[in-house]
Amino acid sequence: MDDEAKSAALMQVTYGLYLVGSRAGDELNVMTANWLTQTSFDPPYIVVAIQKEAHTRKLIDAGKVFNIQNVPSGAKDLLLKFVKPAERVRNKLEGEDYTEAPTTGTPVLAAALSYVECAVEQAIPTGSHILYVGRVIGAGVQHEGAPITMAETGMHYAG
Amino acid sequence: MDDEAKSAALMQVTYGLYLVGSRAGDELNVMTANWLTQTSFDPPYIVVAIQKEAHTRKLIDAGKVFNIQNVPSGAKDLLLKFVKPAERVRNKLEGEDYTEAPTTGTPVLAAALSYVECAVEQAIPTGSHILYVGRVIGAGVQHEGAPITMAETGMHYAG
Repeated sequence: MDDEAKSAALMQVTYGLYLVGSRAGDELNVMTANWLTQTSFDPPYIVVAIQKEAHTRKLIDAGKVFNIQNVPSGAKDLLLKFVKPAERVRNKLEGEDYTEAPTTGTPVLAAALSYVECAVEQAIPTGSHILYVGRVIGAGVQHEGAPITMAETGMHYAG
Repeated sequence: MDDEAKSAALMQVTYGLYLVGSRAGDELNVMTANWLTQTSFDPPYIVVAIQKEAHTRKLIDAGKVFNIQNVPSGAKDLLLKFVKPAERVRNKLEGEDYTEAPTTGTPVLAAALSYVECAVEQAIPTGSHILYVGRVIGAGVQHEGAPITMAETGMHYAG
């Protein structure tokens, strides 16, 4: 395989940028992610790929739930906060304004435009990441506004 | 679940818009899709959700390969051609300028910016769609340019 072409082609895939909330017992976490897509209308499913080493992976494996939060255009700084590994920051939610989503108890930032809550049905290893197949079981809209895109941030996570 | 909130939240996920090439024996097909994401760096994986009833599904199930083609900004008309069901159009590639990708023989439109070729490792039913987990085994860059986004087209396929 032409590795340069592989990276160039994968870099041309279009992404948004999201927060992923997780919970196992009383432990809450939020991380930034972009590798996700809806995969079914009815019932609604969404899949998200999480790094094997991420703390969020442990919480999703234990709690079997996660949420996906749409973040407003212009909120790059908020996303950057949650890029940092939980192991280094300890409690990433300290000082943040958030609530617990009604169905799953996963944390949702007050700044998020909207969110869906998911129940994990499958966890599929795909190389560097685990692909979580989540059935959407809850949702909420918090604010009007356009979502941020990866292109807007100038960030890259692909290739 | 609040179905209105569910649809609104899922509509805020950001997508590109792609061509998916498939092949089983001598039969080739191309369809338009947006529900896809990379899910691993090394080895590289990509997943794509295909409607259960799509002709492409039959070809991927039989041929165990597919490609994802990045389409240039401005090429909405090309994408619209390949939205039509193969059952109605018969040979969607008739009159189109395309080549067969070197590793999988799947059809790649001459107009595509770049493509990755994938070997199917898993086919996961998720409601209305089948989620194909593909390992990237080939790639090519054909033109310089920016990829089209779903937002640019004004089309929607989510919710």
